[in-house]
Amino acid sequence: MSKLRVAVIGARGRMGAEAVKAVNAADDLELVAALGRDDKRETLTEAGAEVAVELTHPDASPANVAFCVRHGIHAVVGTTGWSEERLATLRGQLADAPGTGVLIAPNFGIGAVLTMRFAQQAARFFESVEIVELHHPGKADAPSGTAVRTAQLIGEARAAAGLPAQPDATSSALDGARGADVAGVPVHAVRLRGLVAHQEVLFGDEGETFTLRHDSMNRGSFMPGVLLGVRRIGGAPGLTLGLEHFMDLRGLDLDG
Amino acid sequence: MSKLRVAVIGARGRMGAEAVKAVNAADDLELVAALGRDDKRETLTEAGAEVAVELTHPDASPANVAFCVRHGIHAVVGTTGWSEERLATLRGQLADAPGTGVLIAPNFGIGAVLTMRFAQQAARFFESVEIVELHHPGKADAPSGTAVRTAQLIGEARAAAGLPAQPDATSSALDGARGADVAGVPVHAVRLRGLVAHQEVLFGDEGETFTLRHDSMNRGSFMPGVLLGVRRIGGAPGLTLGLEHFMDLRGLDLDG
Amino acid sequence: MSKLRVAVIGARGRMGAEAVKAVNAADDLELVAALGRDDKRETLTEAGAEVAVELTHPDASPANVAFCVRHGIHAVVGTTGWSEERLATLRGQLADAPGTGVLIAPNFGIGAVLTMRFAQQAARFFESVEIVELHHPGKADAPSGTAVRTAQLIGEARAAAGLPAQPDATSSALDGARGADVAGVPVHAVRLRGLVAHQEVLFGDEGETFTLRHDSMNRGSFMPGVLLGVRRIGGAPGLTLGLEHFMDLRGLDLDG
Amino acid sequence: MSKLRVAVIGARGRMGAEAVKAVNAADDLELVAALGRDDKRETLTEAGAEVAVELTHPDASPANVAFCVRHGIHAVVGTTGWSEERLATLRGQLADAPGTGVLIAPNFGIGAVLTMRFAQQAARFFESVEIVELHHPGKADAPSGTAVRTAQLIGEARAAAGLPAQPDATSSALDGARGADVAGVPVHAVRLRGLVAHQEVLFGDEGETFTLRHDSMNRGSFMPGVLLGVRRIGGAPGLTLGLEHFMDLRGLDLDG
Repeated sequence: MSKLRVAVIGARGRMGAEAVKAVNAADDLELVAALGRDDKRETLTEAGAEVAVELTHPDASPANVAFCVRHGIHAVVGTTGWSEERLATLRGQLADAPGTGVLIAPNFGIGAVLTMRFAQQAARFFESVEIVELHHPGKADAPSGTAVRTAQLIGEARAAAGLPAQPDATSSALDGARGADVAGVPVHAVRLRGLVAHQEVLFGDEGETFTLRHDSMNRGSFMPGVLLGVRRIGGAPGLTLGLEHFMDLRGLDLDG
Repeated sequence: MSKLRVAVIGARGRMGAEAVKAVNAADDLELVAALGRDDKRETLTEAGAEVAVELTHPDASPANVAFCVRHGIHAVVGTTGWSEERLATLRGQLADAPGTGVLIAPNFGIGAVLTMRFAQQAARFFESVEIVELHHPGKADAPSGTAVRTAQLIGEARAAAGLPAQPDATSSALDGARGADVAGVPVHAVRLRGLVAHQEVLFGDEGETFTLRHDSMNRGSFMPGVLLGVRRIGGAPGLTLGLEHFMDLRGLDLDG
Repeated sequence: MSKLRVAVIGARGRMGAEAVKAVNAADDLELVAALGRDDKRETLTEAGAEVAVELTHPDASPANVAFCVRHGIHAVVGTTGWSEERLATLRGQLADAPGTGVLIAPNFGIGAVLTMRFAQQAARFFESVEIVELHHPGKADAPSGTAVRTAQLIGEARAAAGLPAQPDATSSALDGARGADVAGVPVHAVRLRGLVAHQEVLFGDEGETFTLRHDSMNRGSFMPGVLLGVRRIGGAPGLTLGLEHFMDLRGLDLDG
Repeated sequence: MSKLRVAVIGARGRMGAEAVKAVNAADDLELVAALGRDDKRETLTEAGAEVAVELTHPDASPANVAFCVRHGIHAVVGTTGWSEERLATLRGQLADAPGTGVLIAPNFGIGAVLTMRFAQQAARFFESVEIVELHHPGKADAPSGTAVRTAQLIGEARAAAGLPAQPDATSSALDGARGADVAGVPVHAVRLRGLVAHQEVLFGDEGETFTLRHDSMNRGSFMPGVLLGVRRIGGAPGLTLGLEHFMDLRGLDLDG
């Protein structure tokens, strides 16, 4: 069987270097190009890439993806910064390339995606929910993007189920003690030397609590998700937002 | 709006007493009968019960449910001991009562059901999985029935996905250190004064772990699940095994 | 052997009622008086109480304790609100009653006391430390008094060891995300239906983390600590602040 | 100020290489020798080493340490396999070298040492205690040596306090479910891809639980403990067993 021809854009970055390793290690994939900052995009077409993994930065990503779409190369994108406006432009480009697929995912960690998806499903069954995310102390933003996204999904699910605001009798609090409010969900950010990237979603109701926890120890943990995207994007023309669409989370028979 | 007429069979037991309280506290339900050991089943028909909550013991449950089915009373059953043979008999009885529904659930805890369901869905994405269940030291069986059922669901999902046996280089172990093997999943049972009923399912793969945890503090935690069953069983003729079928876990739009 | 004669002041309150039960259940103690709001303090002397457990409220506690000291009755006090000024007055009263002892403890939970004490000891070995406390949503203050006290002890231990401020590169944060600052220690307060009273102290350094966690499920959890105080206060004249002084935490041989 | 002259024996091993890095990075230490398998022990005396870090294997360690003692070089030993017999021999050698110190520690992780020490102190306050240790699936032994040692310390502390056997009503159990029995303490060993080295000690009593947890993410986590030993061994002639003796865990004022 012929291997899928894969290129990595941003191959000298930390995530890109991991992607190069992961593609090289996969039996069914062939790395045909690894582009750094100074390499021309034409390298992709010359190398005959079928799928490009795009791991650069927000300023460069839209042009890289546009190039791929124009040349019928499917793209799996881990770069952030895709605003609604940029997504609209991309959708226009994809309309002119009907067989081509682009996956943009804010998070390629299987555990992180499961946490978000399950949190969204569990939300309507519990009166209370809060998020505690924990990261190394070198992180610039608080809360993490994943925690904010998780809170938003939970807030939407609670609203759709008609749940009222969460119970909270706090009448005397120190500033910051009750966390940041994201879509009605308190989010707490812990920064601790020795940690990497962790998130806990705590649900509670009368007499019981239910907790989802994800621990990511290193960048390698994103690669199974990236490869899943690479293998599936050829069968999914158009724009796909979020790895969960390729995880068949609704395909399992309840009686299985 | 008229209220749903509900009876509790086994109303003097610990679970039954909680069910009586829960039905009484619900605006849309009316408690029309509360049967103890010495009460006749005819009380159910005389009281005009539409749904019966059955919380007795394995020897009594099949006859109670058969009576309900024969008289067109829907049943929500929390009693254990329903073997394949007993279920087959019940299916036959239901075939003669086409509009009547019976829900038999091994666990009415929403958190426990979510843990099992999500564990089943997550299983095929991770190389490793183990279960740690933790209970008060008065518990007779180890592991808990919920942990055994969870392990079986995980084992089936791994087999369906073609996953190999779990990695484990243990070559020198004390007896019992690696837990009990249930369907290829190691299960560890902790017994600790101060605990009630808790379960953790730990998944692991390269560089990341994903954990589901359920903590049940008291019997009241099962009542939201029992009431969910009571409200939904009228719309589900025939036999339903497991509360998860009434939780619409597949009904949520991924982009919601 | 004659039993120790114990009285409970505030016996109709929730904590007081537990104390009555606990004293009654102890073989070596005899409950000789149980005072409610309307009972006279003279009941204590008439009953021949040797030790009084004082569980009332901040406005009543100083006069109750002063009465005990004046009559040579040792006191074990769980009421809050003991300011420096009130403590100074009490010390003066105790100076005139040389054989009498008073124990005032902000927390009688053995686990809570161990958490505070061990946190204090561990503090100087770790670059980072944060506290997450979790309670039922009916709690009025955030963070809990125990969490604030724990943070203060940690802050003092870090200062004594000459540790610099904690590492934290956060440059963009939502309001409240990084918790409340108590003595340089971020403290996060979670409020969740189904929880009772829980606290986690997380320490981190290069490549490792160390966590202390205390879970209190019900008020009964404070009674072993109250009884420990009752049994020991007779041998400790003067004022003792904190149950830890009766726990012999330094008495264990390292090679034991 | 002159720097302390340090040698590393076993410098090509995984732990030894970390020690070389750690000594080189410390301002107050000078690496004067780094011996591999083929280097002569005389290198130590020629280099004028004051302290040697010994990280080799059980067969080589006794002779290495004997050489150090004979030449007045203090030793900090992380190699395992020090039986009672070997320790007796070493004590004899040290008797002839009164100013020289040897520290042998089964574990240099600060968090692991604190876990053991605090577990030992907490043991007598709780009716129940169990240990769950969690490691990567490449580990050969189960439970870990640290977990076994922790269980033994707890068992000794319970015996010294006159505690009875733990409560456990288990009457029907799958093989292995209740863990391995080490000194009366059930120990459970989890093996999961994605984990490194983790341990949880769970204590429980009426209405409360207390948990100590240690997470070690990489070998670097042992180096702060090794350096602490290097700096303190010169002031501790004779044989010291366990890093805890250099951690001043009893030196902190309770009112600090």
